[in-house]
Amino acid sequence: MDSDYGVPRELSDLQKQRALYQPGLPPCLQGTTVRVEFGDATTTSDPAGAHVISQAFPHTYGQSLAHFLRPTAKVPDAQIIVEQSAIRVGVVFCGRQSPGGHNVIWGLHSAIKSHNPNSTLLGFVGGTEGLFAKKTLEITDHILSTYKNQGGYDLLGRTKDQIRTTEQVNAAMSACQELKLDGLVIIGGVTSNTDAAQLAETFAELKCSTKVVGVPVTLNGDLKNQFVETNVGFDTICKVNSQLISNVCTDALSAEKYYYFIRLMGRKASHVAMECTLQSHPNMVILGEEVAASKLTIFDITKQICDAVQARAQKDKYHGVILIPEGLVESIPELYALLQEIHSLHRRGVSVEDISSQLSPWASALFVFLPPFIRKQLLLHPESDDSAQLSQIETEKLLAQLVETEMNKRLKEGTYKGKKFNAICHFFGYQARGSLPSKFDCDYAFVLGHVCYHILAAGLNGYMATITNLKNPVNKWRCGAAPITAMMTVKRWSHGPGAMPIGKPAIHPATVDLKGKAYELLRRSASSFLMDDIYRNPGPLQFDGPGADAKAISLCVEDQDYMGRIKLLQEYLDKVRSIVKPGCPQEVLKAALSSMASVTDVLSVMSSSSLNGQTPL
Amino acid sequence: MDSDYGVPRELSDLQKQRALYQPGLPPCLQGTTVRVEFGDATTTSDPAGAHVISQAFPHTYGQSLAHFLRPTAKVPDAQIIVEQSAIRVGVVFCGRQSPGGHNVIWGLHSAIKSHNPNSTLLGFVGGTEGLFAKKTLEITDHILSTYKNQGGYDLLGRTKDQIRTTEQVNAAMSACQELKLDGLVIIGGVTSNTDAAQLAETFAELKCSTKVVGVPVTLNGDLKNQFVETNVGFDTICKVNSQLISNVCTDALSAEKYYYFIRLMGRKASHVAMECTLQSHPNMVILGEEVAASKLTIFDITKQICDAVQARAQKDKYHGVILIPEGLVESIPELYALLQEIHSLHRRGVSVEDISSQLSPWASALFVFLPPFIRKQLLLHPESDDSAQLSQIETEKLLAQLVETEMNKRLKEGTYKGKKFNAICHFFGYQARGSLPSKFDCDYAFVLGHVCYHILAAGLNGYMATITNLKNPVNKWRCGAAPITAMMTVKRWSHGPGAMPIGKPAIHPATVDLKGKAYELLRRSASSFLMDDIYRNPGPLQFDGPGADAKAISLCVEDQDYMGRIKLLQEYLDKVRSIVKPGCPQEVLKAALSSMASVTDVLSVMSSSSLNGQTPL
Repeated sequence: MDSDYGVPRELSDLQKQRALYQPGLPPCLQGTTVRVEFGDATTTSDPAGAHVISQAFPHTYGQSLAHFLRPTAKVPDAQIIVEQSAIRVGVVFCGRQSPGGHNVIWGLHSAIKSHNPNSTLLGFVGGTEGLFAKKTLEITDHILSTYKNQGGYDLLGRTKDQIRTTEQVNAAMSACQELKLDGLVIIGGVTSNTDAAQLAETFAELKCSTKVVGVPVTLNGDLKNQFVETNVGFDTICKVNSQLISNVCTDALSAEKYYYFIRLMGRKASHVAMECTLQSHPNMVILGEEVAASKLTIFDITKQICDAVQARAQKDKYHGVILIPEGLVESIPELYALLQEIHSLHRRGVSVEDISSQLSPWASALFVFLPPFIRKQLLLHPESDDSAQLSQIETEKLLAQLVETEMNKRLKEGTYKGKKFNAICHFFGYQARGSLPSKFDCDYAFVLGHVCYHILAAGLNGYMATITNLKNPVNKWRCGAAPITAMMTVKRWSHGPGAMPIGKPAIHPATVDLKGKAYELLRRSASSFLMDDIYRNPGPLQFDGPGADAKAISLCVEDQDYMGRIKLLQEYLDKVRSIVKPGCPQEVLKAALSSMASVTDVLSVMSSSSLNGQTPL
Repeated sequence: MDSDYGVPRELSDLQKQRALYQPGLPPCLQGTTVRVEFGDATTTSDPAGAHVISQAFPHTYGQSLAHFLRPTAKVPDAQIIVEQSAIRVGVVFCGRQSPGGHNVIWGLHSAIKSHNPNSTLLGFVGGTEGLFAKKTLEITDHILSTYKNQGGYDLLGRTKDQIRTTEQVNAAMSACQELKLDGLVIIGGVTSNTDAAQLAETFAELKCSTKVVGVPVTLNGDLKNQFVETNVGFDTICKVNSQLISNVCTDALSAEKYYYFIRLMGRKASHVAMECTLQSHPNMVILGEEVAASKLTIFDITKQICDAVQARAQKDKYHGVILIPEGLVESIPELYALLQEIHSLHRRGVSVEDISSQLSPWASALFVFLPPFIRKQLLLHPESDDSAQLSQIETEKLLAQLVETEMNKRLKEGTYKGKKFNAICHFFGYQARGSLPSKFDCDYAFVLGHVCYHILAAGLNGYMATITNLKNPVNKWRCGAAPITAMMTVKRWSHGPGAMPIGKPAIHPATVDLKGKAYELLRRSASSFLMDDIYRNPGPLQFDGPGADAKAISLCVEDQDYMGRIKLLQEYLDKVRSIVKPGCPQEVLKAALSSMASVTDVLSVMSSSSLNGQTPL
């Protein structure tokens, strides 16, 4: 670990060219002065959890949204930040590497130095372990030169993913104090940003002056909520995977004899699998969210695939491509329950050899039924977030094997009369994660780095850097910051009001929205994807020419820009106030009153029904 | 199979843009007239086999080389081809899909139609099975529109790989006669081009007027000889694989806890693995050719990797990337011998269940030692070319497992004191094979398609289309044709003169030349690759901007252009003849004589020593 961090390295021609690429900044962040405008105090999207969250985060809950604006923007009470004094900031990579991570550091460095050349940016070497051990590397433009717009986290490396235990939190605080940091920027996903919020709360409580900022960087794309439209790395991963999936589709269509089962990285949620399906049109995708919603068993899924294989065989098609998110295994009810039993035995210290003998009778029956390779994988120790080691469990092989057995059975019974079923399995993960980041991810990460600086300059603590309106060009992006606590929820035993909260408040991975537009788009085409082989090849990730500026389809079809709308609402309210000033005609006041009464009525009804977990008509 | 061939399909933006790309033609093929110049009669590169080959191919052995030249080129006895009459040509995809295959058809179509719009190009649907069954699709510009510069073989599909048995050859001939074909173009690799030569010989013998032409299209890059510098698809495959390998390298360097074992498609020879190593600088590559030359056992290789892991651990490095060609398993002496025993039992009709009990004692001992998953894979039926099912044998997992066992042993014994060894295994093949072809492969395939037309227009039979000087831009490429028989060799029991030939003459896969410049380049950097992590990321395949015109490193470092040199030699000889005409001064004649005597002396010595399989000093 005392190794090659930040050492200049040999780049290929394309890497060199990429290192010269300069992402743009939205108008609000150009120049050396930026205004910050504070919105209303935030709540959480799940009002039922608000109380629990506010108790757990007394110092950092309920802070206001912040919007960064051009100094010329006409907002009466916005504060102009003209930071003068030099600041010291630390930055750390937490969790799995995601393409574009380096650009957050570059953006942060460029913002810090352009506001005061005497400011310092320290990178923690080797992830959170480096943070605890106070191992730092001062970031300079020279060090950054061969890491700009490049993939991986190898500028600083990363190790363990968590800052959670008292020892870890204390070590982090002691590092921040000893290094006299004004700010600590944590680059990571769902878990790391939850840790960031906890750290911010502890720092505030213990009067440690370091402000903590989180940045949404995770290839899983599951740190998604009203403030965060997508994550750094998701675009690249989906493009690289879609290229490979499309290549396999072309291969399937050329050879006409194999079914390819492809498992995709992306943790519990199926965002990557859904986006890749929209990009490359494989025959099938088994979304974990669908399986969970319909409570499909492994046998239901097997039957569904077999029926599809049989329907295709009737059209003389003996090939196909089926996508499987790695999180699927935890969405299948009986496998999830089995995993829960195994993990609880792990926690009780039962050794791997003894676990199978201590399972409940039904879990044991299922366990014995499964092929040996998957048994071994299910017995692996759970990850730090208590989920199974998803990247190690070969669900695609399990399904391929079950489908093969069932197709052979149907063949023997005469209910299937086609050719023998042949499967080839793939896992696409590691080979995409280290990719050169797409232009979108380069831009998004670089601008987020800038936003981090402005959050720290505004003295905010426990915030996440946010950019919305991302589906539009960079000059239309809106930059802001939201308290991380506003993104938290609390797990409950059941839906509906009055349900008991369990566990600590946390940012939970967002699942694919089965009522969302992206899913609707997928469903509309599903039968055509299944039968008609309308494979589409987005091709390799391009940096120049056609395709270079493409964005994720799921980002573009959704109509997000929550932050933009929150601002627009504020403008409407201000306008009403300025029109209906004391002294205005009686008719104007009456009109305003009746309209506002109707608006507030509608909103009260909608808010209370959303409390019940139901969508309004 | 009565399916969607040639049906227009939805293309992504990038695919659409690629479909509009128009490859250029070298000057010699521009315009509607082309000259063909015939060189000397050909021999084979292995003089010892010449007799056997000439006996097996009495009608097609020893034909002259052909060079295609601009009509204005000053060559006295070249024949100008101004083809008038319409011709009918059939084309078929044989063997595994390779990126760029579609462009051979496009190039052929464009050449045929530009010389006579009434000519017809018929594509055989579903590979050689379609050929035998006379299932055709008339190729039109409309049909080609969504397949130009696109990957896969899905315009026509492919099925079985061989045209070899009497029934198959007869079926092919009957198809050619019934469809009144003037020419049949076979697109494929080593095996398919051997079949093409056999078909040409049979057609000539039986006075079938169809001329047979082969095209070197195989991602393995193993159809390589003095006439053929590289194959269509190799460039793309190496670029796509190198991208993925580089991504994994970046991942390794970021996570710092895994060794990645990556197996690469490419059949018996290690060309793909070598080129990918030169492009992305992984820590190690185990070339099959090195293993065979040094007769390394599986234990030697395991030890070599373990020693490397240990050396890296001493520098506190616990990650790495190791490439393994899929053909490695057949290069390891004891595994090869085991496979030979298994295959011979297969040939004798022994069922899979009984094979293990009928192995010789030593083979049985090795078999039992191997992990169960690999035993099952070794028992698979051999392929049509008698080799093992290389894509199904997970050599990378076998090696990873053996290395892990050995490292754990060393850890226990205290000879290794580092962290636990962790491996992750990958197979890169199917996900690269269907890629959009690189610009180089688009150009190369398109021009080869044109050359096929000119071979047929010149009435040549049993030739392969060739282009040399490929490392230079398209306008410097030299187009020609070489008799396929000139590329054949005969396997012998041992080296040296007098050794008995065994088996039929065939084009054998070229192995990596351990005396070649590319290998030298690799060896020079090997220790630095191993220890210094100088990973290099060529990035995703680009079609525009930097990197788009990159060519394979192994193509560029070799100094090939054999066809160009053969022509140059001819020019020298012509020049001598024209200077030393009867009537020239005595001194000139004397000088010529003494120089020529010395040249012929040197060449005789060199040729006889190469006969002994030795390289001259």
